[in-house]
Amino acid sequence: MFPNKKVQKAIGSKVQVEMKGDHHILEGTLKSVDDYLNLHLVDAVEIVDGEKLRSLGSVVLRGNNIILIIPVEN
Amino acid sequence: MFPNKKVQKAIGSKVQVEMKGDHHILEGTLKSVDDYLNLHLVDAVEIVDGEKLRSLGSVVLRGNNIILIIPVEN
Amino acid sequence: MFPNKKVQKAIGSKVQVEMKGDHHILEGTLKSVDDYLNLHLVDAVEIVDGEKLRSLGSVVLRGNNIILIIPVEN
Amino acid sequence: MFPNKKVQKAIGSKVQVEMKGDHHILEGTLKSVDDYLNLHLVDAVEIVDGEKLRSLGSVVLRGNNIILIIPVEN
Amino acid sequence: MFPNKKVQKAIGSKVQVEMKGDHHILEGTLKSVDDYLNLHLVDAVEIVDGEKLRSLGSVVLRGNNIILIIPVEN
Amino acid sequence: MFPNKKVQKAIGSKVQVEMKGDHHILEGTLKSVDDYLNLHLVDAVEIVDGEKLRSLGSVVLRGNNIILIIPVEN
Repeated sequence: MFPNKKVQKAIGSKVQVEMKGDHHILEGTLKSVDDYLNLHLVDAVEIVDGEKLRSLGSVVLRGNNIILIIPVEN
Repeated sequence: MFPNKKVQKAIGSKVQVEMKGDHHILEGTLKSVDDYLNLHLVDAVEIVDGEKLRSLGSVVLRGNNIILIIPVEN
Repeated sequence: MFPNKKVQKAIGSKVQVEMKGDHHILEGTLKSVDDYLNLHLVDAVEIVDGEKLRSLGSVVLRGNNIILIIPVEN
Repeated sequence: MFPNKKVQKAIGSKVQVEMKGDHHILEGTLKSVDDYLNLHLVDAVEIVDGEKLRSLGSVVLRGNNIILIIPVEN
Repeated sequence: MFPNKKVQKAIGSKVQVEMKGDHHILEGTLKSVDDYLNLHLVDAVEIVDGEKLRSLGSVVLRGNNIILIIPVEN
Repeated sequence: MFPNKKVQKAIGSKVQVEMKGDHHILEGTLKSVDDYLNLHLVDAVEIVDGEKLRSLGSVVLRGNNIILIIPVEN
């Protein structure tokens, strides 16, 4: 299964995403993903040092600025 | 709905955009967006620490330097 | 009007461009732009803290390292 | 053998990957790779100063934010 | 004249190139350029604070990591 | 000769490569290169302040994170 298929399989589930920039970690429910790994998350929260810092709600993440994506198991 | 469609739906509404660089946050009314997520905002303001720092007016943002886009609900 | 058209409309006028890197701001007259938002500016000056630091003359800017472009009204 | 073929040959084996960002090194078993060098690793761990810092499990790495990939010999 | 044509016109002449990374400025004679603005310079020198720091000889620069290109007039 | 051809000509020879990130310099024998300037090096070493810091062996470098490539003359 190619990396982008692995991400598509996580649609409807929680993912954790590390972005470029200030040690940015976001967690949310994955609504959609395209071929560039642009992501649409809902109920997204920003996480700093393991703590929820801020609720972002619905957010679109630009794929080329994603470092890594971790499906969150429940 | 793919991530870029989610952004297109925000045309005419306010969006908040986090750019690469100096913790750059911009807020403005989305006029247009293309497939690279290049954005054209009007009435854009630069926001630092939650305060409006500077009015930029009409501004074009390069898509690959966008970290994330948040539609602002009113 | 798509974002790149907005930039094309500024050909012949002054634009301010924020680049990645050291808080780099350039101002000059836009001579040409292509689909990648690569820009050719003439009479370009580098601006630091609102002061003109250095004249660069004719300069080509790589589109993917542009953060944002602001048409300068006169 | 082209660079991406060299990476494909490592499928099923351990690789060490250096990412952009905070001196990020990840080690895991390579499950898949695509033409953009997006990687899917399983049993991934984050390594800081030669020590395993954190277990990440299954993780997708965005290719354009990879600095280098080293196949780990056993 | 599109930005890449402006660069092609400088083949055989000196150019100054600012790269991403450590305030990297390179000066050399432009031998070739492609559509991605990858550059081949000869007699290249690295410049720091306006001083020639190091001779690099023949060097290939990756286009997407170029901030700007200035043709050097003699 | 286009920049990528200049790099292809160095196959089988030593090259020095400056990467994005922590002032990363790598030296090794170039085994292969593709159109994105992804490189496969063997007998690669990491160089810091002109000293060999670490042997990496066989390594794949992501082209878009390469700043510059210098063929090393013997």
